[in-house]
Amino acid sequence: MTDVCIVGSDMTRFGRYPEQNVPSIGAQGALLALKDAGLSIKDIQALYCGNQLEAKAMSGQRILHLIGQTGIPVVNCANACATGATALREGWIAIKAGLYDLVLCVGVEQMGRGLLGGTAAPNGIPVEGLLGSGTMPAVFAKVGMEHARKYGTTFEQFAKVSVKNHFHSQFNPKAMYQKPAALEEVMGAEMISYPNTKLMCSVNVDGAAAVVLASAKKARELGLRSRAITIRASTLTSDPYSERDLVMHDFNACTRLAARHAYEEAALGPEDIDMVELHDCFATAEIVHYENLGLAKEGEGATLIETKATYNGGRIPVNVSGGLLSKGHPLGATGIANICEVVSHLRGEAGSRQVQGARIGLTHVVGIGSAASVHILERAYP
Amino acid sequence: MTDVCIVGSDMTRFGRYPEQNVPSIGAQGALLALKDAGLSIKDIQALYCGNQLEAKAMSGQRILHLIGQTGIPVVNCANACATGATALREGWIAIKAGLYDLVLCVGVEQMGRGLLGGTAAPNGIPVEGLLGSGTMPAVFAKVGMEHARKYGTTFEQFAKVSVKNHFHSQFNPKAMYQKPAALEEVMGAEMISYPNTKLMCSVNVDGAAAVVLASAKKARELGLRSRAITIRASTLTSDPYSERDLVMHDFNACTRLAARHAYEEAALGPEDIDMVELHDCFATAEIVHYENLGLAKEGEGATLIETKATYNGGRIPVNVSGGLLSKGHPLGATGIANICEVVSHLRGEAGSRQVQGARIGLTHVVGIGSAASVHILERAYP
Repeated sequence: MTDVCIVGSDMTRFGRYPEQNVPSIGAQGALLALKDAGLSIKDIQALYCGNQLEAKAMSGQRILHLIGQTGIPVVNCANACATGATALREGWIAIKAGLYDLVLCVGVEQMGRGLLGGTAAPNGIPVEGLLGSGTMPAVFAKVGMEHARKYGTTFEQFAKVSVKNHFHSQFNPKAMYQKPAALEEVMGAEMISYPNTKLMCSVNVDGAAAVVLASAKKARELGLRSRAITIRASTLTSDPYSERDLVMHDFNACTRLAARHAYEEAALGPEDIDMVELHDCFATAEIVHYENLGLAKEGEGATLIETKATYNGGRIPVNVSGGLLSKGHPLGATGIANICEVVSHLRGEAGSRQVQGARIGLTHVVGIGSAASVHILERAYP
Repeated sequence: MTDVCIVGSDMTRFGRYPEQNVPSIGAQGALLALKDAGLSIKDIQALYCGNQLEAKAMSGQRILHLIGQTGIPVVNCANACATGATALREGWIAIKAGLYDLVLCVGVEQMGRGLLGGTAAPNGIPVEGLLGSGTMPAVFAKVGMEHARKYGTTFEQFAKVSVKNHFHSQFNPKAMYQKPAALEEVMGAEMISYPNTKLMCSVNVDGAAAVVLASAKKARELGLRSRAITIRASTLTSDPYSERDLVMHDFNACTRLAARHAYEEAALGPEDIDMVELHDCFATAEIVHYENLGLAKEGEGATLIETKATYNGGRIPVNVSGGLLSKGHPLGATGIANICEVVSHLRGEAGSRQVQGARIGLTHVVGIGSAASVHILERAYP
């Protein structure tokens, strides 16, 4: 199969743009990625667009309406918080199939203000949703409490995840918030759903992220080798438990399966990864995903945060972008924004937050409902 | 690239199922296609789901929740009236890429009653929509009037399209309506937007259609050769005019481009096609698409209906299923339902409406907003 690499990659600053709309924000992301690749929309052979909240509004075509209508196939994808990663993966598949050599993938969302909303009741079972226990904050509170019950993880340890990610975000000019938050501030913030305070919940923001994918052959032809990043693995999974009949899908199982497939596909293990951007939609989630992604042994996730191993400069830096907690979480954009972050580091272009010597990076998103996606990227000139 | 064929294909009867929901209707379609292939959900390696109106509701995963959660990748696609065709094409691409050997593609919609709604104002220009001239009936009235102005096409000729499709539908047990409509009845029905009366507008219905796609190798391995139908071409386009800044996308140009690509891909011409299922969302559209798809010369579309060439038994039967006008038009299901219809005929399993000797068939859908898709299928054992 054709090797696929990323030859253009960029994102808008995540923030609040009530004066804009999904197409205009998406168009900005698309143009940034095209500019980064030194290409025009006329070079692009297909567009994959990920947008969750206005999934039926033909956002991909409306982006082209703003940046140039060339008649190319446009596919609009929605997969909850895995929407952007799904759009990117479909673009990757289309190049692997040999249909196209240059594909644009855009993830975009306009969230407005407020906490991450919705309920985790995709199966049409409204009871828990109505009771409030199926809301996102409640689900991820339970996730944390279960980890605390089994392994003794503390409120303070969960809070330290948020301290780390807010610390990181001050070096990321694309992040919504760019200032540190002290432990007392995080723990003392308004309690949303124990143990996650307001500063331990991801931020609703507007934004777009985009990548230009190329076949290895095309990247060489265009002279884009030196900044190209190879996609070593791209995986997508859904809930693997047939007997499950609960409101909450098992996003842990989804993630573990997606990670296992990715490590197999790349013929790599967690020990080979230099940096990770994972789905810290709530602080509790990050510690659980350390284990789901194989970065820590079962029950030992909190050790990574206690020892500062996941800080930039630590053994395995996680969410040096600031993560969803501080950079922000525009659903459809998040999966591609993670990729943009890793690409910056693998290229050595991440400025003051550069993870030194990063050569292989992993990204992860998981959507309640259920969809998990893991990508492994490598600086390996095609 | 891998050859891809259809080894399972079926649909629910199109109708009104207010007591059900999108996942339950989609699950029925999926199970019918699996049964037709003699396979189980456990054999399937990826699911592509097309649903337009609830595009952000994770319908694919909810279908799996009902028929078996196995952890496979699920991609939810939306592309207006080209939604089902887009989902199918993504499945086709995934097999072509060599990632999977067996993929399930489901199109599903729950429309409820009423006329085809929405406006053709995807670019966020609301003026024409607010004036009523951007609604679907108004758009396709203008399409007919323009054809009448340029080529002298008459109200009666447009009405005869609906007479034909209602006539065909009486032989299709999956159609919403299964009775003929006389010319006087069609012309005398409530005028919606001249020249389309109520009987010349597609029917809002609920329904699902699904196919199981297989690599040629897998189809042989499973002993499914004898009923397999090969996908000779699968194309998707968007509006090709960069200078266009109107409310209405040019679905004629989209369709022509999709058809041209499809004929090139299949190395076939319109003269090689034995039957067509095209997007007769309004009676006026069918005549225009005769020309867009190359079945008639520019301006001569009405001749096909006058000479009854597009009746079953004629030179090139069109919409022998009853078409969107009488079979019904559940947006996300339509693109795959067209394919199911052609598959039945190419297999020689279409019963009393069988197109005799059909070996190659073409399907077409077009979504305002903009997306057109053409597929060419052939009875050619893999």
